[in-house]
Amino acid sequence: MSSHFVRMVSKKEKLMDEIMIKEKIEKGRAWLRTGYGEEDHPDYQTDQQLKKKQPPLVKEAMSENVIGLPTDFEGIEVETDFLTIVNRRSSHRVYTGESMSLKQLSYLLWCIQGVKEIRGKSYATLRTVPCGGARHPFETYMAIQNVEGLKDGLYHYLPMGHKIELLKEPEDLKGFIGTSLMGQVWAEKGNVVFYFSIVFYRSEWRYGIYAHRGLMTDAGHITENLYLALTALGLGGCAIGAVDGRYCDQVFGLDGEEESIVYAMPSGTVSEEDRQKEQDFYAFVKEQGL
Amino acid sequence: MSSHFVRMVSKKEKLMDEIMIKEKIEKGRAWLRTGYGEEDHPDYQTDQQLKKKQPPLVKEAMSENVIGLPTDFEGIEVETDFLTIVNRRSSHRVYTGESMSLKQLSYLLWCIQGVKEIRGKSYATLRTVPCGGARHPFETYMAIQNVEGLKDGLYHYLPMGHKIELLKEPEDLKGFIGTSLMGQVWAEKGNVVFYFSIVFYRSEWRYGIYAHRGLMTDAGHITENLYLALTALGLGGCAIGAVDGRYCDQVFGLDGEEESIVYAMPSGTVSEEDRQKEQDFYAFVKEQGL
Repeated sequence: MSSHFVRMVSKKEKLMDEIMIKEKIEKGRAWLRTGYGEEDHPDYQTDQQLKKKQPPLVKEAMSENVIGLPTDFEGIEVETDFLTIVNRRSSHRVYTGESMSLKQLSYLLWCIQGVKEIRGKSYATLRTVPCGGARHPFETYMAIQNVEGLKDGLYHYLPMGHKIELLKEPEDLKGFIGTSLMGQVWAEKGNVVFYFSIVFYRSEWRYGIYAHRGLMTDAGHITENLYLALTALGLGGCAIGAVDGRYCDQVFGLDGEEESIVYAMPSGTVSEEDRQKEQDFYAFVKEQGL
Repeated sequence: MSSHFVRMVSKKEKLMDEIMIKEKIEKGRAWLRTGYGEEDHPDYQTDQQLKKKQPPLVKEAMSENVIGLPTDFEGIEVETDFLTIVNRRSSHRVYTGESMSLKQLSYLLWCIQGVKEIRGKSYATLRTVPCGGARHPFETYMAIQNVEGLKDGLYHYLPMGHKIELLKEPEDLKGFIGTSLMGQVWAEKGNVVFYFSIVFYRSEWRYGIYAHRGLMTDAGHITENLYLALTALGLGGCAIGAVDGRYCDQVFGLDGEEESIVYAMPSGTVSEEDRQKEQDFYAFVKEQGL
């Protein structure tokens, strides 16, 4: 009888699990769908509509260690033709360990978050990527190692004036990178791991309760430009959704409530000779005859 | 007393509303954060891990009206330099009504969803955009008008073989466009309105309950390439989150359960002379002294 009881429980647990999985799948799908059953709130007014004060367009420098970035990009690309770049782009998880130049880092930051213009007195930044309502709620943090002219450490991009600031010099930078990306240790050889946070209210001020769904799309605009800019420079990278945002927030000193790191992209110097090592990440496809 | 009662009720309703708004904001933020309180499910196995059969990589043609697309893109770009394109890209909501060529449409489709390679026997498509796990769960639908050589109507892209198929010729195509984009009638002058659906299980097979968060980021990769490709051609567009997916699903014949339209981008021919009309969309910035 005790064995019967055990069987009954485990059957029930299995059933529970299947229901739970189905519910989670349905919840995920529901978040993606639009026009299905979400409530309309015709009387709802966003803080912008209520004429509340707009939050700052960017986060100010948090340290004294501010470094200007070179903006003369003449001759640094190995490929400039757009269609060739689009056709050549691929994911790179194997880095050579050679150094990256400061000018290359500057080019990458310009292509992903550079401020081209201010709209109005201080209404919005127009950047090198599109963003819903030109809210640009993202902040760019970096774990940098082996970039010419920079100390290894944790940095923050200051888009106004196109500068970076050194925040911290952790003893075990590689350990931080691996842990922050849920144990994806291949990223520890990257020259620059980009971490993107969202300052939520910067979008919520304009879009309120409707702000959130589009923000990961805007994050995708950024990483696609990063992929293409890396390809233009003959470098490589791979965008990563499996980020331990809570751990990143702690290390970068973000509160997690108003600002939180949501997405990352390791990048670095790559070599044609490592093509086979890159393919090893997909060895299971052949092994399993897929 | 009745007036007192009314006041009490309205006070309570206001309070309820503030709580509801706060809850919605917190729910949106929670969906974006990672590493905070989501349950780990170490025993959970995805269908790929359970060796279940993989779904098809693409959706097959649904009609007999299949049209091959030209692939010789020689000389069709007005700008080929990557950095110039990145710097020049901006949102365009004003279209001239001139025609777009079939080769231009072909170039756009190639840059956003073109299949460069098949990994394994039929494990994954490698495309001109990156996508988590190379799942590429998107299907591209279009409302097309005034494209040389094509009847006005609703189309679907067939990435294998780089073809399109005509699905329907609605009487009121402009009406469909306006309604599908929640009344944004400016889009009705676009030559091609792109609608992106997600075939959910194509990603869920590999990522299961973790599939959904990254999919809007992958949609952002697509629309960023579309922005840049349009700029290369001297055309313009504007990505739109405010899509009535349910209405789109009905019109394109999607079930909404397994596949649903989540995102759209109107595009068309643009003119430097319309720059002022484009600025009129932001007239409120000046009017309100923002």
